[in-house]
Amino acid sequence: MLRLNEVGEFGLINRLRNMLAVEAEGLPCGIGDDAVIVNTGQGLMVFTMDAMVEGVHFEMDYFSWHALGYKALAVNISDLAAMGASVPSFALVTLGLKDDTEVEAVEEMYRGMMECGESFSSVVVGGDVVRSPSHVFVSVALAGFLEDDGFLSRGGALPGQTILVTGTLGESHLGLCWLREGGSERNRCARRHLYPLPRVEEGGVALSAGSSACIDISDGLIRDLGHICYESGVGAELFLDSILVSGDARETARELGEDPQRAALYGGEDYELILVAGGESAAVLCEKLDATVVGRITTGDGVRILDSEGGEVKLSESGYEHFREG
Amino acid sequence: MLRLNEVGEFGLINRLRNMLAVEAEGLPCGIGDDAVIVNTGQGLMVFTMDAMVEGVHFEMDYFSWHALGYKALAVNISDLAAMGASVPSFALVTLGLKDDTEVEAVEEMYRGMMECGESFSSVVVGGDVVRSPSHVFVSVALAGFLEDDGFLSRGGALPGQTILVTGTLGESHLGLCWLREGGSERNRCARRHLYPLPRVEEGGVALSAGSSACIDISDGLIRDLGHICYESGVGAELFLDSILVSGDARETARELGEDPQRAALYGGEDYELILVAGGESAAVLCEKLDATVVGRITTGDGVRILDSEGGEVKLSESGYEHFREG
Repeated sequence: MLRLNEVGEFGLINRLRNMLAVEAEGLPCGIGDDAVIVNTGQGLMVFTMDAMVEGVHFEMDYFSWHALGYKALAVNISDLAAMGASVPSFALVTLGLKDDTEVEAVEEMYRGMMECGESFSSVVVGGDVVRSPSHVFVSVALAGFLEDDGFLSRGGALPGQTILVTGTLGESHLGLCWLREGGSERNRCARRHLYPLPRVEEGGVALSAGSSACIDISDGLIRDLGHICYESGVGAELFLDSILVSGDARETARELGEDPQRAALYGGEDYELILVAGGESAAVLCEKLDATVVGRITTGDGVRILDSEGGEVKLSESGYEHFREG
Repeated sequence: MLRLNEVGEFGLINRLRNMLAVEAEGLPCGIGDDAVIVNTGQGLMVFTMDAMVEGVHFEMDYFSWHALGYKALAVNISDLAAMGASVPSFALVTLGLKDDTEVEAVEEMYRGMMECGESFSSVVVGGDVVRSPSHVFVSVALAGFLEDDGFLSRGGALPGQTILVTGTLGESHLGLCWLREGGSERNRCARRHLYPLPRVEEGGVALSAGSSACIDISDGLIRDLGHICYESGVGAELFLDSILVSGDARETARELGEDPQRAALYGGEDYELILVAGGESAAVLCEKLDATVVGRITTGDGVRILDSEGGEVKLSESGYEHFREG
């Protein structure tokens, strides 16, 4: 008997993918991407579902109900953005609530969700409320409809192509640390953690510019780039010095005694996009999206981090560890 | 400050409906039905979402993982059936799992879900797994696509029309009592609780026969008929003696010391359909679906129960209470 904490989330998902393989046969884009693409008979639907659970993804002592509603929808919209689907979408929400939850709190959550929807062309079309004995959860399903057959996936990266990232990284993780230390939600990193901005427009531009692979950063740059490598059957080199860290991140990291570069590499939930593109497309993405080149796709597998002189940097969970070959 | 246990689920949903009213403006069928109908630009989508939570909708000591997966999808398919949407559908699932859950258990849950999907033309196209600290939950979103503009709603019942019910009632509730007492899942009522049969074909027949309102029985006959009355702005009379109780229900009720008729009126989760139809349509439904006439729609509001002589029967939560006018 294998338990979940032995195989981990990734191990489990791989096993389930094998089970769903038959179901996935008719799907334009397999299973295991940010969202699934379904041929509905009327056209292509991009369909995703994501949940936030109290005690796992948030704690009520630093998360307002408003932010919870906003973010629960935003992270789903980000999944659509990562497919290049800059289309209007329709959301359903299931709320798991405790008996003593205040009605006003639920309304506040809905307000946050609807505000996010208005910002990113997503309509909350309905929902369900169920009792949850000990932990609040918010489960959102989102469906958008593609106007033509094009979409981005994790599996299209080719050796030699350029890796780009939109925006700056690490703020969400630092914002979470800040909130956990009791800091105000007015801190810019904290706001970024609570109210992420899904890159919907950018996903659309990336698709039309001919980007060949894309993922949104929910698990952190290294891990999510690793997902692209795994799905594409390639490796990646990341240029450590090119990773953009914002002034806000530096300042908050200083106050917390954290390393902002480390947050940029491993911190999750920035919801920026990692884009992979060939030469001309990459140039377009740099210009149109103000995206930053952070590395390149190689043969092999896995993600290697290089310093400014091209030497490999070994990073462990607990800190940096330089390692130079030759 | 109002708490959920003061306003109840119905009170909360009404407040949220008012908030969502603006969002619902463009929807062919408002909010508050079994599923929502969305004009996708490519056609009409029927979209629903429902969750099962450990300690609320089931306990692991009498629910197998296989049954959990099966039922979590079946109750969503039943929502589509109640809209008359006898179409293929696509499901996404989010699993909230505890750290010590066995991988085999999750696979068993997926198998149950896929078996249900195969029986009712629903394809499980993907899923997400999240950690849940203390209670397992299964959240399913389901999307189907209508071939033309027709669908059934809760809001179309008219005074004078006939109320019909498919199949027999009360078994699921009695099966639940049986399982809670430690009874075997081979009992037919128990199986009906664990493996409900959504009335997909029947919903389609009801739509084409011109049924004017429909709901699936998840909360119990009286309550779900009450939902039709509320949405249609009508009342209803239910003929107590016409409610069909199966031999299985009688037998299990006898062993449990329960009242099978009471279970048929108030027991939830039979997932039969309540259909409302005018004279000719009602005759077609009786014939084609072997549906039973159980009452008629009236002016006014609320559900009144009548005995064989037309006298009103007052039923309280704790038992029957006859009440005759005049």
